Amino acid sequence: MAPGFTGSPLDRADRLRSDAEGYAAVVADWRGRLLALDGLDPVVSAEGVLTWQSVAEVAAEAELILLGLLEGKPHFVQLVEAQGDMFRSPAIWRALSMLPAEEAAIYGTARSLIDWHNGHKFCGACGGATALFRAGWGRKCSGCGKEHFPRTDPVVIMLAEFEGKVLLGRQSRFPPGNYSALAGFLEPGESMEEAVRREIHEEAGITCAAVRYILSQPWPFGGSQLMMACIAQAQGDAITLDTNELEDAMWVTKEEACAALSGDEDRRFNAPPRFAIAHTLLKIWAQEG
Amino acid sequence: MAPGFTGSPLDRADRLRSDAEGYAAVVADWRGRLLALDGLDPVVSAEGVLTWQSVAEVAAEAELILLGLLEGKPHFVQLVEAQGDMFRSPAIWRALSMLPAEEAAIYGTARSLIDWHNGHKFCGACGGATALFRAGWGRKCSGCGKEHFPRTDPVVIMLAEFEGKVLLGRQSRFPPGNYSALAGFLEPGESMEEAVRREIHEEAGITCAAVRYILSQPWPFGGSQLMMACIAQAQGDAITLDTNELEDAMWVTKEEACAALSGDEDRRFNAPPRFAIAHTLLKIWAQEG
Repeated sequence: MAPGFTGSPLDRADRLRSDAEGYAAVVADWRGRLLALDGLDPVVSAEGVLTWQSVAEVAAEAELILLGLLEGKPHFVQLVEAQGDMFRSPAIWRALSMLPAEEAAIYGTARSLIDWHNGHKFCGACGGATALFRAGWGRKCSGCGKEHFPRTDPVVIMLAEFEGKVLLGRQSRFPPGNYSALAGFLEPGESMEEAVRREIHEEAGITCAAVRYILSQPWPFGGSQLMMACIAQAQGDAITLDTNELEDAMWVTKEEACAALSGDEDRRFNAPPRFAIAHTLLKIWAQEG
Repeated sequence: MAPGFTGSPLDRADRLRSDAEGYAAVVADWRGRLLALDGLDPVVSAEGVLTWQSVAEVAAEAELILLGLLEGKPHFVQLVEAQGDMFRSPAIWRALSMLPAEEAAIYGTARSLIDWHNGHKFCGACGGATALFRAGWGRKCSGCGKEHFPRTDPVVIMLAEFEGKVLLGRQSRFPPGNYSALAGFLEPGESMEEAVRREIHEEAGITCAAVRYILSQPWPFGGSQLMMACIAQAQGDAITLDTNELEDAMWVTKEEACAALSGDEDRRFNAPPRFAIAHTLLKIWAQEG
């Protein structure tokens, strides 16, 4: 049960990012491969894997990001201006339902980096224009010289557990019938465990005690997120919904979770897709004990 | 064994951030308290706790950040321009050795937010000037209208374990004799577990298999970091040091870790300070089994 967007076979080769000579050789390597994108969406082959082109096909002025090495061959993605909202793109949902986690991991890294570059064209400290450096793993300000590095936002995603049931919620933007684990951004000054308790209390009015970390995965939509999945012990089951965040919330049993995960006809709700960590978290919980 | 910078008693009251009327009432509350700072350093009282002033003492044009509520009283910090490097400030080390974790948690949140504001005066997307909004929990661009929110960088910090010993390293900026757990920023497109394995391999040339999450805490120096502490099973003990990152690395036994943590005279090395998660991680490992 590999979590979504994990297991990339690429060696990130971070040593090349600060080695001008080594990186020049890698860019000149005729075996270089370039990730094919349609806007921001992946181009999935008939075999259900990512499509690669020759790096010789890019224009001389193209800006490249080194994703890593595989079997000695450099793998790049080209920086593009495109933006996208995965909740409005049926193409991305179709692609992700086909791609194995390790292929999605390569795509996700590329998408997160493109999004970061487009959001950091200017220096937050002085307003000066920034330019790509470090093989695409940084931008440097032309004004004050400040170096900026790709960032990832930690997100907690969790099941509150009470008497054999867990709490799921739905946001209004979800597809009809879909429920998932509650989630929210971790804030400055709190631990993962504190963020889990705060979010459950804010969104559903439920107080939790012990928090148990289960697993993590990256999420490349709306930036670059690290999804940290936990199970928290609730101290009651009376829900007070924050309707700005959630349209509905409900307690589900292990049987209901299993029925949803296997797509049974008489399921109570639709489970999150396989590539979302809420799917894996719910599955691990349903199979526990 | 509360991890450093955790356990703040303040209610973050995030509902007030988007409630203009409610927030105006909180700002006008004569019981409001303002965190005393000396530059960016905390002002620690003779009793070893944070010092607070009346919010009535701030200038009308001061920019305030709402840290939260305690016993109904609003607690603020004022946005200042100061910058600081904790590794060059004996005052901050002294203060942190005195403050209980829950007091340090309040200070850490304030410091991280001040740092974030100072680094985000301009919009990364368009270069326009930004202004504080949402009670200090955001900045809005005057040019394109983009909203920016305080960010936290996830960092992995870990012990590689092999045959009853764990790997510690020292950076050249550490105080003499100090050793700590290896650490590094998580990159876009990887899980916590993948980042742990990559960092240990990059810094010490050691390959690890299973990764076990232990605990987390915030770290408010050099921005806002979420420190995620793990123990990884090493598959060998031959060290290949990345001398750009580490000056030295060594394998230590549980006895050596205990001697360092209790400051024994004949200790092999100096342990990280109590408020660093590496201290708690090493202690948990040394007391295991």
